[in-house]
Amino acid sequence: MSKGQLVYSGKAKELYSTSEPDVLQVVYLDQATALNGLRKDQISGKGQLNNQITSLVFEYLSEQGIDNHFIKALSPNEQLVKKIKMIPLEVVVRNVATGSFVKKFAAVEGTVLAPLIEFYYKNDALDDPLMNDAHVEVLGLATAEQVAQIKEQTLALNQALITLFKSIELTLVDFKVEYGLTSSGEILLADEITPDTCRLWDLKTGKSLDKDVYRKETGDLIGVYEEVLRRLERALTKNN
Amino acid sequence: MSKGQLVYSGKAKELYSTSEPDVLQVVYLDQATALNGLRKDQISGKGQLNNQITSLVFEYLSEQGIDNHFIKALSPNEQLVKKIKMIPLEVVVRNVATGSFVKKFAAVEGTVLAPLIEFYYKNDALDDPLMNDAHVEVLGLATAEQVAQIKEQTLALNQALITLFKSIELTLVDFKVEYGLTSSGEILLADEITPDTCRLWDLKTGKSLDKDVYRKETGDLIGVYEEVLRRLERALTKNN
Repeated sequence: MSKGQLVYSGKAKELYSTSEPDVLQVVYLDQATALNGLRKDQISGKGQLNNQITSLVFEYLSEQGIDNHFIKALSPNEQLVKKIKMIPLEVVVRNVATGSFVKKFAAVEGTVLAPLIEFYYKNDALDDPLMNDAHVEVLGLATAEQVAQIKEQTLALNQALITLFKSIELTLVDFKVEYGLTSSGEILLADEITPDTCRLWDLKTGKSLDKDVYRKETGDLIGVYEEVLRRLERALTKNN
Repeated sequence: MSKGQLVYSGKAKELYSTSEPDVLQVVYLDQATALNGLRKDQISGKGQLNNQITSLVFEYLSEQGIDNHFIKALSPNEQLVKKIKMIPLEVVVRNVATGSFVKKFAAVEGTVLAPLIEFYYKNDALDDPLMNDAHVEVLGLATAEQVAQIKEQTLALNQALITLFKSIELTLVDFKVEYGLTSSGEILLADEITPDTCRLWDLKTGKSLDKDVYRKETGDLIGVYEEVLRRLERALTKNN
């Protein structure tokens, strides 16, 4: 299968068509951004780490019966995924209050949440605004039934990820995922699950093992992403 | 009944305690603000117009079986209302897409909506952020059951107001209300219903008869508020 045309270019990855119409090739980039892209850095090795981390996580989720777009890793920084029609929503799950939620609503940092699900309109020109369920429907991003399905799948995903990360001594504080629609109209988990898109706090020290070390300039991104990959490999890789 | 201590000072009205513990006196001010209070003007006569308009609207709602906090008008710019525990939510209903909704989500101006209900956290320091239902619950502003009740009451209110304003040749484009809890824990409509808090478009000309003439500096506020009051009086005042 050969890499075709660039079909999507994001902050941390690029998607290419392939010779298979239903398959896309993802290239994870050595790029980190913060402040909605205002800060941008090349960080050698980041793409490979995220590709390996998200591959391990998606394989685990498939084993747990949580369907997703992942097909297989191709190279250290490339993977194949199912091509689906993306829903322009960033679905955020918060298990612990921190970050923008605390700032926006003056919530108490560290409060354990129910969990809380938020939808953001994935639209750079609009700065990804928060929406309520009615906005999602009125703007035609998803039907009420699809919104209910996304929430149900997201809560199941959250439980599976909490269990996974707890097994490697990490608290899943919050994360962002995206969904798409298959050709038969089913909601399918897509995007990535990495320290770029999750807040992960060490269970013992409380330290961030995620992109917050880059956002807040408090540590070495590569070092903490390597630590997450090492722990995942230890827990998930068979016969090693 | 004598006016007591100032208990709340808003952008367009002040609330005072009275000799009755369950009753507050509202004074409607001759003040208009825009851009979250950055622009502020004294407009002589505005307080009287809003007090008379909201009194007529609340009396109409009571007759329609929609309970609310209004007791009676006291003077041209003062009224008595029931003292209730306010829920810090601005409940917005949109029947037609315009204003901040169009800007924030790049929606098409003039689109007829389902209607759409939005909750904003009433908190000046936080700039009244938009919330979803889960935020309302997590922050303890209202329970899931109360949120459902607020939505149900708001849809009924919207229908009654659409009918009222249509009868005076105005389209109810959108509006904002607030609710409180009575001592027995019931959700009760409070706040005001005036051209400060509603967008009203003339059915024939499409022109704004509301605070947008002040926000956009396109007309004389007093003139259009007087026109709304005149139409309401013609429709609602008995034996005149």
